[in-house]
Amino acid sequence: MESKSRRRPAGAAVLREGVTDAIRAAVVDELAAVGYGRMSIENIARRAGVGKAAIYRRWPSKLPIVLDVVSALALYGMPAPDTGTLLGDVRQLIGATARLLEHPLAAQIVPDLLAEAARNPEIAQAAHAAMRHTQRAVAAVVVGHAIERGELAGDTDVDLALDLAIGPLYWRLVMIRTERPAGYLDALAAATTAALSAARLS
Amino acid sequence: MESKSRRRPAGAAVLREGVTDAIRAAVVDELAAVGYGRMSIENIARRAGVGKAAIYRRWPSKLPIVLDVVSALALYGMPAPDTGTLLGDVRQLIGATARLLEHPLAAQIVPDLLAEAARNPEIAQAAHAAMRHTQRAVAAVVVGHAIERGELAGDTDVDLALDLAIGPLYWRLVMIRTERPAGYLDALAAATTAALSAARLS
Repeated sequence: MESKSRRRPAGAAVLREGVTDAIRAAVVDELAAVGYGRMSIENIARRAGVGKAAIYRRWPSKLPIVLDVVSALALYGMPAPDTGTLLGDVRQLIGATARLLEHPLAAQIVPDLLAEAARNPEIAQAAHAAMRHTQRAVAAVVVGHAIERGELAGDTDVDLALDLAIGPLYWRLVMIRTERPAGYLDALAAATTAALSAARLS
Repeated sequence: MESKSRRRPAGAAVLREGVTDAIRAAVVDELAAVGYGRMSIENIARRAGVGKAAIYRRWPSKLPIVLDVVSALALYGMPAPDTGTLLGDVRQLIGATARLLEHPLAAQIVPDLLAEAARNPEIAQAAHAAMRHTQRAVAAVVVGHAIERGELAGDTDVDLALDLAIGPLYWRLVMIRTERPAGYLDALAAATTAALSAARLS
């Protein structure tokens, strides 16, 4: 499609972007199919329809490619909500996180990266940072707005707030993987909002 | 030690129990060292100091051994608290879960099993059931007592309560693996208790 649009950058740049995107997509598919441990540059190249050199020109090894892709996935569908109420913001944050975690690729990739992270400190640092920093930034905005509106105390701890808002969903959707009943996200948002009001790290 | 106690069962029974325990311990060590995928009956036998036949007499294959061991780990240090208040019970449940998750073996094994679970439905069902049912039973007792005392509404949803009580710890200690500051468990218990009071699945 892109190549048929009327105004476009010079051919080489289009190609480069197209190749990079194709490699990223291939990495996601390979991660889901075989996991980090068994993933190879060769198979990524074959799946993306490029040569191995095209990959090595962009990333020196498997690890930085995966971290690049994981950071992009963590940002997927995670805009900072601004509904005007803490309950509304928490509901949006929870809804976006649930959509992310219920994505079939995330369901395969997240546990796999956690397992690698338990054995490889470099992966651990990057994967945890990608998960935490992205969502912590969103939580900081939500908490900040709630403090401005007087809905939360000025010293509300953002990390504890993030744990309270995100943790139950990860437990339910990643750890025990049980279906969520109708009304679950609404109930969780209401409970989390109450938890946030009571959260005090002294 | 056991073999020196004065009154003991007949020799063969002692031996059998001793071997079973040695195999279980070897499985835990192997899981932590190489993970489920690379674990072999041969290496378990070598580590336990027994023949492979001793293992196959007890379990038909690798999977049921691991599930046996995981179920035992999930029960480790997880008695149903009964302090007389919801806050006290939640604090004990959270404390026991934190100790379990901060155990170096659990820190290795839990992510590994989750990754296997994402690819193997049999492991998924067993691992999730082991995690969920054990802790759900404890949550059911805590919620039941709180309902009797009038601290929670009679229709409080136990699954949602478990998500709220356990989820933040799994997120903090298994997913993003960041240190918990002083007072964290107390703050989490207070926030969770507030969340439970507000949790309504309609």
